[in-house]
Amino acid sequence: MVATVKSLTLEEFLQLPETKPASEFIDGQVSQKPMPQGKHSRLQLKLCNAIAPIAEEPKLAGVFPELRCTFGGASIVPDIAIVRWNGIPREASGQVANRFNLHPDWAIEILSPDQSQTKVLGNLLHCSQHGTELGWLLDPAEESILIVFGDQKVQLLSGDRPIPTLSSIPLLLTVEQVFSWLSL
Amino acid sequence: MVATVKSLTLEEFLQLPETKPASEFIDGQVSQKPMPQGKHSRLQLKLCNAIAPIAEEPKLAGVFPELRCTFGGASIVPDIAIVRWNGIPREASGQVANRFNLHPDWAIEILSPDQSQTKVLGNLLHCSQHGTELGWLLDPAEESILIVFGDQKVQLLSGDRPIPTLSSIPLLLTVEQVFSWLSL
Repeated sequence: MVATVKSLTLEEFLQLPETKPASEFIDGQVSQKPMPQGKHSRLQLKLCNAIAPIAEEPKLAGVFPELRCTFGGASIVPDIAIVRWNGIPREASGQVANRFNLHPDWAIEILSPDQSQTKVLGNLLHCSQHGTELGWLLDPAEESILIVFGDQKVQLLSGDRPIPTLSSIPLLLTVEQVFSWLSL
Repeated sequence: MVATVKSLTLEEFLQLPETKPASEFIDGQVSQKPMPQGKHSRLQLKLCNAIAPIAEEPKLAGVFPELRCTFGGASIVPDIAIVRWNGIPREASGQVANRFNLHPDWAIEILSPDQSQTKVLGNLLHCSQHGTELGWLLDPAEESILIVFGDQKVQLLSGDRPIPTLSSIPLLLTVEQVFSWLSL
């Protein structure tokens, strides 16, 4: 999470070559996401695997890990972005587009060790302000999930509490279940 | 931030000797606050010094650093608790009481390095659920302040944004001003 370049416009930022891990632009600042580690990688995969069959097979929503979303003067890369099926940008051919100039409908972030939670929460609040219905912020160290609703309301969940999901996606998960995926 | 004892009731927790730094009890878990360091200490003092004259001289509210507040099944020790003047518990003598079995009206937390922001935000959301009108969560590393409103709504502020204060307390501060106190 290092500020690499300052005083750029969003347009100038978008001209820069992609970095790995991805860089994000928000509030006029550029910062690079942390290198994902074991717990992050595992939770990201397992969440995608849990959500995709329920969301994609009935064509309710698409699941996009590490997708750049540019909207509201910022360009962020949620760990998982879920976009309702009809809102997925498509090329004339019908294929999915490469550029997503829109907010995700559901954004999931997984906190990495030493990552600034303020910054990640700031990304989800930016989403919330610009139309995203739901955000999840997973904290593996605390085994809790902060839910960010559309009106910047938040709720902290742990234990056997069921987690709110994007409306119309019938996914039933508890916080415990999600973090149990870390045990091999 | 180490869980020291488990499976205690709130009553059992309150019988334990006080620790230094203070221990807190929330969601059935006991954890000890981190040892305050330089930035934390400085911000705590300067905030108290900014708020106290405006709040206490006109008898609007009392300012209490490191005050144990026990309410809603939890016992927490905000870095600064502000309680409206008429709500301050008093002994028959008229002196301030030692036990505050109430929620603060305004709670301020200052993040320490390596402290779990999820845990501190959890404390402020507990406050918000139990009647606290306003919470501030200062992140010195990001120079930003997360505002927690009474209905669990949050807002992330930085730069020259004015900070909402407890209604009727005419304190005008920007986020920049607060963190400028760190420069000697």
